[in-house]
Amino acid sequence: MRDVCIIGIGQTPIGELWDTSLRQLAYQALKAAAADAGIERPDALYVGNMLASRLSDQAQLGALVADFCGWRGIEAATVEAACASGGVAVQAGVRAIASGMADVVAVCGVEKMTEATSHEVTSGLATAADADYEVAHGVTFVALNALLMQRYMYEYDVPHEAFAPFSLNAHRNAVSNPNAMFRRAITLETYRKAPIIAPPINLYDSSPICDGAAAVILAPLAVARELGITPIRVLASVTATDCLNLDDRRDLLGLEAAQISAQKAYEQTGITPDDVDVFEVHDAFSIMAALSLEAAGFAERGKATHLARDGGIAPDGRVPISTMGGLKARGHPVGATGVYEIVDVVTQLRGEAGANQVQDAAIGMTQNIGGTGATVVTHILARE
Amino acid sequence: MRDVCIIGIGQTPIGELWDTSLRQLAYQALKAAAADAGIERPDALYVGNMLASRLSDQAQLGALVADFCGWRGIEAATVEAACASGGVAVQAGVRAIASGMADVVAVCGVEKMTEATSHEVTSGLATAADADYEVAHGVTFVALNALLMQRYMYEYDVPHEAFAPFSLNAHRNAVSNPNAMFRRAITLETYRKAPIIAPPINLYDSSPICDGAAAVILAPLAVARELGITPIRVLASVTATDCLNLDDRRDLLGLEAAQISAQKAYEQTGITPDDVDVFEVHDAFSIMAALSLEAAGFAERGKATHLARDGGIAPDGRVPISTMGGLKARGHPVGATGVYEIVDVVTQLRGEAGANQVQDAAIGMTQNIGGTGATVVTHILARE
Repeated sequence: MRDVCIIGIGQTPIGELWDTSLRQLAYQALKAAAADAGIERPDALYVGNMLASRLSDQAQLGALVADFCGWRGIEAATVEAACASGGVAVQAGVRAIASGMADVVAVCGVEKMTEATSHEVTSGLATAADADYEVAHGVTFVALNALLMQRYMYEYDVPHEAFAPFSLNAHRNAVSNPNAMFRRAITLETYRKAPIIAPPINLYDSSPICDGAAAVILAPLAVARELGITPIRVLASVTATDCLNLDDRRDLLGLEAAQISAQKAYEQTGITPDDVDVFEVHDAFSIMAALSLEAAGFAERGKATHLARDGGIAPDGRVPISTMGGLKARGHPVGATGVYEIVDVVTQLRGEAGANQVQDAAIGMTQNIGGTGATVVTHILARE
Repeated sequence: MRDVCIIGIGQTPIGELWDTSLRQLAYQALKAAAADAGIERPDALYVGNMLASRLSDQAQLGALVADFCGWRGIEAATVEAACASGGVAVQAGVRAIASGMADVVAVCGVEKMTEATSHEVTSGLATAADADYEVAHGVTFVALNALLMQRYMYEYDVPHEAFAPFSLNAHRNAVSNPNAMFRRAITLETYRKAPIIAPPINLYDSSPICDGAAAVILAPLAVARELGITPIRVLASVTATDCLNLDDRRDLLGLEAAQISAQKAYEQTGITPDDVDVFEVHDAFSIMAALSLEAAGFAERGKATHLARDGGIAPDGRVPISTMGGLKARGHPVGATGVYEIVDVVTQLRGEAGANQVQDAAIGMTQNIGGTGATVVTHILARE
């Protein structure tokens, strides 16, 4: 098995990008990543996407994007696991190289959400839940997260306001990220007064509907050295699953797939949570940030809000999260998010994170979560 | 890179399966394949599917199916490339093993099409084409294939009736396949009198809307030997792409992605078309069977109908195709088809194809085609 590393990254700004179509988003991110890596044409392309089939009436994005990038002929496919689509696409890229079947692989996460009606988007996002056992009862995806948050607050006796630091941290960090959707800090007062989306989830507990694409170029270590690039190594790329429907979870607040995938990644690398300098967390909702931090071993069960309250999640904290704004404020173009997380960690490990730079960041980790925890992809990256 | 082989196969009958849900279809095929291989639980699962997001409001099939099979926790994802979804899912499975990251991998292709309205299915299938440049003009997927067929007939001066042998062969072979949708032979007269779907394509040039699932279990050669199984080796697994839209093809009737993927598969294995004992072709429309045979080097350009006319595609012919009924008569549950093709070839290589057995079949090939040729996956399999 060959060592795999990241030799290029690219991203579009995230927002309501009326002038940019689905394929143009993917193109911009991929071309930026290819230019960053100094490559012309990859051997293969994996596209992470969740909603194009419903919202853009477009399947077969792999071939579509490959052709639009001028890479007609190469191997290409789409990989999907709801909001973890970006993460599983990166894993597919890692496999292609590790197996020796490809040398230079491009991975793009892309989502175009803002051209559809809010009904179409809400129905689309609900496909991440169990259609027969959850959505058939009329529950939305936000509502499922609200059930988790409510249970968390009850089980651990945590007030709603305890989640505010997740949102404040994300918004503060987004200010200096030119690609972030919401480049403004918010106050505790703003969080307190936010309209409720699905109780107890409020506007600032939730990530936005948006458009965006991120991309990485992967290569074997040897190729990176040939190109004269200081590579970021992919030490672990692990996916684990759980049932989609919350009612059948063995441990409702345990986020079991996140536990399994983090544990396997730690075992494969010998790295522990203490070694991780930056953790890009899947804060689609603030409750998910808390659950992921606990499942990955960065906080004890029921204590993630304490970590956040004590400044542990800030860029100078014990485990910096959402360092470029996270899903909350950088934005959450769903199928692209897993790749944005990787791009953010690479930016940190390269020391290019500007005002949000985590000092001496050498080891970074991401968790990309599909549904309410049904698919979880953990990546551990390290500076050479 | 480790050698990969197929140690188990499973399938559901294909048809209008009103009593069987999407997840149940996948379950039945996977459990049959696992039983065939004698394994309890794979390390990973890849699901090939095209339409569940639109027709069943269900994303994240990887985790959903893994859980429904009792495999909660394992790695899982969905892989999509329109009607080549099954093929790219098999390739993902091959990669997982070749890279050493998994030992036993399950791959399932599944599609549930008959619960939706015909408008929903027609719109869904059209997502395989270019939404912005083709479908926006109102063209359906059948109509795009009709354009290809019309051009073929004009370019090579071939009458419509010359395509009849593809349909007759498929229907004849389906009679003895208990899993086929249409287990009845048809006559030339039936073909001649068939209603037109989109001129020149008639009913018997077209594969049916249907439900079904097929599965394979993959393992390294060493594991197969431990289990005491005579494995079928995966010698090549190659994907290539082209533009989605027909108007931008460099060579309209060349099916360039099929040429590239076949050529690479031949180069990787040293196998030539003459060595192939059975070729499961993507006969979604009879024109596609002809184009694929030519692109893969089994017939000269413009001569595939001659091969068919002269009996070359029958089970005792030079290059037997659609040996269990093909997409035409076995059925074409779109995202499942690439896996059905592999299952059919394995059945042949094991010598278990009954009345349709190709004598001494040792090397088999499949081509799975997404869209009108935008994604093409070629697999070459061989008996140990």
